[in-house]
Amino acid sequence: MRLKMQIEKTLSDSQGIPRARATRVTLQGSQGVAYEILTPVFMPVGTLGSVKGMTTHELKKIGAQVILGNTYHLYLRPGHLRIEKLGGLQRFMGWDGPLLTDSGGFQVFSLSKLNKTDDDGVTFQSHIDGSTHRFTPELSMEIQKSLGSDIVMAFDECPPYPTTPEKVQTAMQRTLKWASRGLEVPLQDHQARFGIVQGGLYEELRVVSAREITALPFDGFAIGGLSIGETPELMRKMAHFTAPLLPQDKPRYLMGVGRPEDLVEGVRAGIDLFDCVMPTRNARNGQLFTSLGKINIKNARYADDPSPLDPDCSCETCQKYSKAYLRHLFICGEILSARLNTLHNLTFYLNLMHQMRNSILENRFDDWVKNFYTQKKNQMSAGIES
Amino acid sequence: MRLKMQIEKTLSDSQGIPRARATRVTLQGSQGVAYEILTPVFMPVGTLGSVKGMTTHELKKIGAQVILGNTYHLYLRPGHLRIEKLGGLQRFMGWDGPLLTDSGGFQVFSLSKLNKTDDDGVTFQSHIDGSTHRFTPELSMEIQKSLGSDIVMAFDECPPYPTTPEKVQTAMQRTLKWASRGLEVPLQDHQARFGIVQGGLYEELRVVSAREITALPFDGFAIGGLSIGETPELMRKMAHFTAPLLPQDKPRYLMGVGRPEDLVEGVRAGIDLFDCVMPTRNARNGQLFTSLGKINIKNARYADDPSPLDPDCSCETCQKYSKAYLRHLFICGEILSARLNTLHNLTFYLNLMHQMRNSILENRFDDWVKNFYTQKKNQMSAGIES
Repeated sequence: MRLKMQIEKTLSDSQGIPRARATRVTLQGSQGVAYEILTPVFMPVGTLGSVKGMTTHELKKIGAQVILGNTYHLYLRPGHLRIEKLGGLQRFMGWDGPLLTDSGGFQVFSLSKLNKTDDDGVTFQSHIDGSTHRFTPELSMEIQKSLGSDIVMAFDECPPYPTTPEKVQTAMQRTLKWASRGLEVPLQDHQARFGIVQGGLYEELRVVSAREITALPFDGFAIGGLSIGETPELMRKMAHFTAPLLPQDKPRYLMGVGRPEDLVEGVRAGIDLFDCVMPTRNARNGQLFTSLGKINIKNARYADDPSPLDPDCSCETCQKYSKAYLRHLFICGEILSARLNTLHNLTFYLNLMHQMRNSILENRFDDWVKNFYTQKKNQMSAGIES
Repeated sequence: MRLKMQIEKTLSDSQGIPRARATRVTLQGSQGVAYEILTPVFMPVGTLGSVKGMTTHELKKIGAQVILGNTYHLYLRPGHLRIEKLGGLQRFMGWDGPLLTDSGGFQVFSLSKLNKTDDDGVTFQSHIDGSTHRFTPELSMEIQKSLGSDIVMAFDECPPYPTTPEKVQTAMQRTLKWASRGLEVPLQDHQARFGIVQGGLYEELRVVSAREITALPFDGFAIGGLSIGETPELMRKMAHFTAPLLPQDKPRYLMGVGRPEDLVEGVRAGIDLFDCVMPTRNARNGQLFTSLGKINIKNARYADDPSPLDPDCSCETCQKYSKAYLRHLFICGEILSARLNTLHNLTFYLNLMHQMRNSILENRFDDWVKNFYTQKKNQMSAGIES
């Protein structure tokens, strides 16, 4: 087995549809030791082989279970063959836990300088030096095979938002064909594969995409093409619509989502895995998530504030430093600012998921969600930035 | 007692002059708990209230005993009165060990956009926003009192290099007068004060400066005005000349020095305390100190190198990561690069001091120095960058 999922608890919504759930995902692992992931789970993003500012030791310490690596970035720098020679991405970056790699699909469309898609693949220019490269479904598999991740994502076409329904349909059909082609490429024994549902904001396309992709022998399924510019309401509606189209007995992954409330809605919809650069990127920009609401640490009101960032947080940042110090570090552009902020934001996200998981297991998820929104409302009426 | 020094061992040179020594410096501490510093010691520089990229927890872990804060920088941002209100610099930055603050003298001359010195003080423009400020010996004491450091440095004038003997003499005389004026300003009970010997590269001026400054009731003495552009040979010669002019029974501090071999020569001369931005700044620039010589980690030769940075180093960077990974992080400008490099370089510096201290205590310092230079010579003939 490459991947096994044990469902510990599933909650149904008012219409009897199975939704929020807690599961244990077991991965074979490349070193003869299996990994276990407790879901719902948030996966910190380690774009270039590091979760920006963090050591893998710290990630473990704050409860990160699985991290994400970016195929597009690692292909360009330092190169997947180099990483393979050095023992794979986990060994390269010193992470002895499970790893998921994306397919590079999203990045070639969103990051590269120019890109030209045909039925066979995508030709693009590197965002670093403008050099020309070409990704195909086969190459994406080869790269991820070299990286040695535990979960490999199918190569998909993610059309921009907004665009025409025709273009969304073409991309969705292409994604299906690319999924089949990718499946022909052998991976390492331990590597599981996830297919990706596309179809934009069109329910009828999502239905077709889900039906076709779930007919293929993938170990799990992702919902792609969301959180790319549409409103949060539309994103949530589509996640809610699509999740039940995916099989109960395999992991579900909502790609690139999102804000804390988006994670809550994702879990409500029945999603198991999430990733997003928001906690790490916002941390570097001084945007911090706390149990009392969102805080912009550069705000002058914190200049003399001796209190911790979040009184309810047990991370080193909150246990040891004041808002005044964090503001000072941010204003001065000190490296420690990015570190301490990232440590906190990731702790916040990981705790949020942990709380949701426990409340599902203890059959009090609805109350937890109600309380989450009550707190949010109180924060807004109390004038806390959010 | 604010400061007490116990000499554990002193070695004499071939002319019978007492030189290299190992001591225990006890500081009263502001929290009712005394601090002990084992010398010779290197003090990492925490310019703006953080040793760039490092947490104070990490600094403790790698054996940092005392760190340095910069009066000029902290006066400008976030302001000394703000830090005072927040409980002093140590509390502000979460460092529960001894702290030394410089006087701001060196920075107003080297960093500020414009500066104008008269007998009373220095008027200067901030390097950040061009705003006009004025430091006097009295204000420097007031600022350091607010910061609450354990060792306060006298406000000195450090003339640029090269300059005329007249200007060096004027600055030296002014430094003496400013030292006396500073002594009139009461500090916190626990704060010790160090005077600074100036006089550039002129032995006769150093003699006068040392004689006059050591006649004042300081708790320790620093050699200033070196490592500002003169050759390493001249710097060492002057440190060697000046050290024996300072009292045996008080700590001696060579300011802003330097490279590993400069620390070795400083200890040989009889110096106890050192500080320099070199290990931290070089780390951020990818210049790493190892037991096999200096390494520029961006060099292409390390792109596929699976070996640790320094096989003889026990720091997390060397225990966990390869040169290939460190090069990759540096090339990509990842924050983790600055962290891991700084962790290593500081470990290297702290270990170097630790080794020297032990070899003094065990009466084998001369052999240790001989071995240090033999290794250095071998590295150079083996073509290792240095």
